[in-house]
Amino acid sequence: MTVDSATSSPTTPTTSHDSALLEDFATLSAFGATAGGGVDRQAATPADGEQRAWLHQWLTARGAEVRYDGVGNQFGLFTVTPGAPYVLTGSHLDSQPLGGRYDGAYGVLASAHAAHRAVERCRTSDGTAPYNVAVVNWFNEEGCRFKPSMMGSAVFTGKLPARTALTTTDPAGTTVEAALREIGTIGDYAGPDVAAYAEIHIEQGRDLENKGISIGLVDSTWAARKYQVVVRGEQSHTGSTVMADRRDALFGASLLVVAVRELAEQSTDIPLHTSVSEMTIEPNSPVVVAREVRMHVDLRSPDEAFLDAAAKKLAESVPGIEERASVTVERVQTHGWGVAPFPAAGVELAAQVADELGLSHQTMMTIAGHDSVNMKDVAPSIMLFVPSIEGISHNEGEDTNDRDVCAGTDLLTEVVHRLMSGALDGAR
Amino acid sequence: MTVDSATSSPTTPTTSHDSALLEDFATLSAFGATAGGGVDRQAATPADGEQRAWLHQWLTARGAEVRYDGVGNQFGLFTVTPGAPYVLTGSHLDSQPLGGRYDGAYGVLASAHAAHRAVERCRTSDGTAPYNVAVVNWFNEEGCRFKPSMMGSAVFTGKLPARTALTTTDPAGTTVEAALREIGTIGDYAGPDVAAYAEIHIEQGRDLENKGISIGLVDSTWAARKYQVVVRGEQSHTGSTVMADRRDALFGASLLVVAVRELAEQSTDIPLHTSVSEMTIEPNSPVVVAREVRMHVDLRSPDEAFLDAAAKKLAESVPGIEERASVTVERVQTHGWGVAPFPAAGVELAAQVADELGLSHQTMMTIAGHDSVNMKDVAPSIMLFVPSIEGISHNEGEDTNDRDVCAGTDLLTEVVHRLMSGALDGAR
Repeated sequence: MTVDSATSSPTTPTTSHDSALLEDFATLSAFGATAGGGVDRQAATPADGEQRAWLHQWLTARGAEVRYDGVGNQFGLFTVTPGAPYVLTGSHLDSQPLGGRYDGAYGVLASAHAAHRAVERCRTSDGTAPYNVAVVNWFNEEGCRFKPSMMGSAVFTGKLPARTALTTTDPAGTTVEAALREIGTIGDYAGPDVAAYAEIHIEQGRDLENKGISIGLVDSTWAARKYQVVVRGEQSHTGSTVMADRRDALFGASLLVVAVRELAEQSTDIPLHTSVSEMTIEPNSPVVVAREVRMHVDLRSPDEAFLDAAAKKLAESVPGIEERASVTVERVQTHGWGVAPFPAAGVELAAQVADELGLSHQTMMTIAGHDSVNMKDVAPSIMLFVPSIEGISHNEGEDTNDRDVCAGTDLLTEVVHRLMSGALDGAR
Repeated sequence: MTVDSATSSPTTPTTSHDSALLEDFATLSAFGATAGGGVDRQAATPADGEQRAWLHQWLTARGAEVRYDGVGNQFGLFTVTPGAPYVLTGSHLDSQPLGGRYDGAYGVLASAHAAHRAVERCRTSDGTAPYNVAVVNWFNEEGCRFKPSMMGSAVFTGKLPARTALTTTDPAGTTVEAALREIGTIGDYAGPDVAAYAEIHIEQGRDLENKGISIGLVDSTWAARKYQVVVRGEQSHTGSTVMADRRDALFGASLLVVAVRELAEQSTDIPLHTSVSEMTIEPNSPVVVAREVRMHVDLRSPDEAFLDAAAKKLAESVPGIEERASVTVERVQTHGWGVAPFPAAGVELAAQVADELGLSHQTMMTIAGHDSVNMKDVAPSIMLFVPSIEGISHNEGEDTNDRDVCAGTDLLTEVVHRLMSGALDGAR
């Protein structure tokens, strides 16, 4: 006799809802699956198109109407009270190159299940609610193929002109508009009238896991500053050009990477995250001194004044770098957000539901940007976290226990159901 | 009445040979011409194919037989004494991306003119010579599209197996063999029996210009060490991953670029050129900590022991970098050469000819690698330099005065003619 290992696992799904969710998550994880156990489905690639088609079918099969707006945001509208606004819940299906299965995708799938369950619950009671519910799969949250990140929600919330987004090109010169037409998920829907917004995501850190807590209730965002930096030197021969004559853009860029890291190394009291993770080097030949390096600098802190001081310190290091490498450095802030609260009423609502479900919870800040960071400025918004194993993120090894996946979805379902009843009316 | 500006220029060609040379150089410079006044004709690209076809036609029209060996080296054989070995003269037509018009191409064209003139001179005297002369356009000297550099001459001189060269791929995965077949310049010729080799090139430095000297006579090479370095970290989220958990390959690579530069900054007595000019960053996304950076490190010095000491010092800096960035660094020497002399008899021969032509000259070392660095190991070889304006090289702004272009070709013509008479027989 064999024992079915699924029944003896500590992460065993215990309800048919759990089984359906995990089965769908396995199906979803196959789109753009990589050999390393992750996914590669960057925005508007064929893999993104396939998963969007799958979600379209999933939603339609459960009675939702699927519509696309002009920048590829995908909405699944469950209408119980025609003409009423919608509780919107979702995240994004696009991933980083060699990204993990959970980042974004978990939030979309949990939202689809939560919305469907909440609607079923309405239908089995009196069949009405003050608000409808809609699932959203925001376009291009990751910002790797097309920049900036959080593109779809930025357009939806009026922070980025649609025209700017549509004419943005990937490194091969393909526009967002052309890529969206290629996968056929662009439309003319203006988007629903939003009564409230809810999003669930993996933590992408190890705080919940370290403390053994099931749910993070996001009460505010870290501040972030993102810069486009161009280091300009001059092309010359790596062998014969005497060192004093070199204007080496890659040397200048490397000094800047080190200076960016030193900002964090020197911050002992207040957390500061600093990163350079992308460079475009011209001409990038082993025997030609680089004439130009373009790169992104990313600075984040829970303390906005401290972040600004760090940015100032970085700016002060530039003249020394320009002199040492005989280059010029141009720095433009392209994107950023402040320390901003999520509405306290939403945090309280989610905490109450978690208590009722027996889920341990804590409030926390989000360091990573999420579509909810845009949405909270236009609608009462709730942002929930489930634990990430070892905090691994933007990595094929990203993982979350099935138990946490299911518990988070249960929480989101109840939160969505209460939002449909107007639980956050008037809160911001 | 207008004055023809060409007749009043200080760089006026004064002979019909000069006019023909400069006209051909203008024609040649149009292949792969860039908006910035340079050329982009990397090895076995369509632009390389076009210039090879043009050279083929040029040589054939002047009585040479054009043949290709198995790795795309292009030979133009002027046979005055059937069965006798050949004096070989040439350089390379391929360029860096956004490279200059002179690097390599000047040497091939000067060789073609010199060989043709030398043969004409034989024909107008008794019509014979102990040796024939052949022009060579070596395949892929630059080593940017396909690595390593000096590929064609390395295969010809037995330093690199032909099979290794042919199966080398460019970043798009195209092999050398496929690229050569695409442009149709691959054959089965074994290559000529070489009695002596001569090459002329722009200096790619400013020593001749600074001193107002017309000709550099290369008496030896700087030593060079080239390394492939792989820095390995781990992919994670640039925002949310706490700094202590990061294994940032781009930070590690940047520390290494700075350490490489510091080797040169700290060398005050003995010249040391150090460079990193190419990096491949994975995944190269603005919001993902880099998991891997592959890069080339290039160290050069006229003092081999000093170069080895610098390489040792670099190796000693690695553990500290690995610890600070939480990465691993793998370093493999891929290519290199020692301080090696060109035969003194060749330097003397060229000096004598320069004196007879009234051209000022000095002996000097070559810092850059050239095909002659390979050829000197298998045949008595002469390497000549003409000045580079401001020493600019591997840059669209690369330039040499017409007067120097013509004078160098005159010198090469006379040198080739004397080599055909056996002037270096027995020298190495």
